[in-house]
Amino acid sequence: MKPLIFALPGSELFADQLALAMQADRAGLALHRFPDGESLVRLDADVSGRDVVFVCSLARPDEKTLPLLFAADAARDLGAVRVHLAAPYLAYLRQDRRFHPGEAVTSRTYARLLSATFDGLVTVDPHLHRYHALDEIYGIPSRVVHAAPLIARWVAAKVERPLLIGPDSESEQWVAEVAAGAGAPFTVLKKLRHGDRDVEVSLPDVSAWRDRQPVLVDDIVSSARTMIQAVGSIRRVGLAAPVCIGVHALFAPDAYDELQASAPSRIVTCDTVQHASNAIGLAEPMARALDQLMEGRAP
Amino acid sequence: MKPLIFALPGSELFADQLALAMQADRAGLALHRFPDGESLVRLDADVSGRDVVFVCSLARPDEKTLPLLFAADAARDLGAVRVHLAAPYLAYLRQDRRFHPGEAVTSRTYARLLSATFDGLVTVDPHLHRYHALDEIYGIPSRVVHAAPLIARWVAAKVERPLLIGPDSESEQWVAEVAAGAGAPFTVLKKLRHGDRDVEVSLPDVSAWRDRQPVLVDDIVSSARTMIQAVGSIRRVGLAAPVCIGVHALFAPDAYDELQASAPSRIVTCDTVQHASNAIGLAEPMARALDQLMEGRAP
Repeated sequence: MKPLIFALPGSELFADQLALAMQADRAGLALHRFPDGESLVRLDADVSGRDVVFVCSLARPDEKTLPLLFAADAARDLGAVRVHLAAPYLAYLRQDRRFHPGEAVTSRTYARLLSATFDGLVTVDPHLHRYHALDEIYGIPSRVVHAAPLIARWVAAKVERPLLIGPDSESEQWVAEVAAGAGAPFTVLKKLRHGDRDVEVSLPDVSAWRDRQPVLVDDIVSSARTMIQAVGSIRRVGLAAPVCIGVHALFAPDAYDELQASAPSRIVTCDTVQHASNAIGLAEPMARALDQLMEGRAP
Repeated sequence: MKPLIFALPGSELFADQLALAMQADRAGLALHRFPDGESLVRLDADVSGRDVVFVCSLARPDEKTLPLLFAADAARDLGAVRVHLAAPYLAYLRQDRRFHPGEAVTSRTYARLLSATFDGLVTVDPHLHRYHALDEIYGIPSRVVHAAPLIARWVAAKVERPLLIGPDSESEQWVAEVAAGAGAPFTVLKKLRHGDRDVEVSLPDVSAWRDRQPVLVDDIVSSARTMIQAVGSIRRVGLAAPVCIGVHALFAPDAYDELQASAPSRIVTCDTVQHASNAIGLAEPMARALDQLMEGRAP
């Protein structure tokens, strides 16, 4: 039988796309908050004997996590065969070690909670730094979707004579992949540190690319400080206002307005976190990753 | 070695009292929220080799639960011998069955999460209805503190010629216990249902108690509708404005103002949920329950 797809609040559009791409059934989920602040979840479809997928983008995770776990337990309780999580954005990966004495390593606790609740996990470009793979902390099978090919396809289709630019040297490999896919050159910004608080961002020599349209790409856009600084650097060397592309549109309060105020040519994001800037859809590769996961095929 | 007591935000005052009552050490816990909505917890004391108690009143639980689980995992990770939860108010007990098809039974999921994280649990008057004991859903040792004796002591000390009044027939046994402890008579309000939405609350004949000070007692005050109706009924039969006593001061937005507007003589609550109306402290019996729990003694 086809899988049954539920969306947690904020992930309805992605779930709709995913159901189309998987030719799966889409069902409703009702989330109610009582006056005392407790949540109640109701699944509006018969899950018994079905493979169930909960779509939940985990930006601002603290308020979303309990309802998600309640929904998953309800599905299992009501006879679902397997219960999967499709988290286009997966939270709690940054705190991958104890940076100061006494700190919690939240990535491990969060992985423990999800692993104890779901049978499998699919996400897009998880923010792995010291961990090499989700398997290091997640005890369930997972598949990772890469946004780079779809970003490359969007750039190739929408931007004439693009120059891909990464915000720092760590992004080099990833930006190179997007650039290769788009058939375009690339470069990365360098951070020049003059002192503790005096960090200048600079571009290498760009004289060969004066006629190109700069396209800034980054994985997570949260405070947007990095991207705003990069827009300034690009404009100061006389290049055109850049197109800004982010994978995960977290956008802390005011961050989107501030990024717009830096006057880029356009701001575009993938649809892993629902936002007005979403333009690059990832439901298709997510559907293929879920199919692989459910069939136990290698990534 | 003495236990080490940490407080989650909102439970600092209770934790201070608990540390005094247990002659235990009190330590700081820092909770930070990042701009992207993720939380980080830091324990500001060396927990290795210690029994650790986290004090966390679980009113408005959805935002508190992840930080609490992070803190507990951090303590265990950093070498705590046992990690206990002192939850003066315990959340997610009302949804003790599936009231409508497809609903999550949130009490079971919540119990699963806490049981997988803590070694033991102490709480005050949990709202058990269909469950007879926490053991039915919690897989860890627990002890329950009863507020009735301390409420009775407060009434005996502060109210002259009290008449205890319960809001409904379900509260009868509990109100009788408070009344007995305070050496006072008691009665309960009856609900007369005239139709689906037309519920009248009425007092039995109170002519024998005209000279007494009514004292309304209830366990959870959330929307405060029950208590506001009861205040009206009591005043309509010509009794004095009642003293209102609640165990758990949940108070949904506006509920406290609305209860005050019903013109009771005074509003008093236990300190299980930090609130301006707190006047009855439960740290002493909570300390004894924690001692019993840690020593594995019977309640």
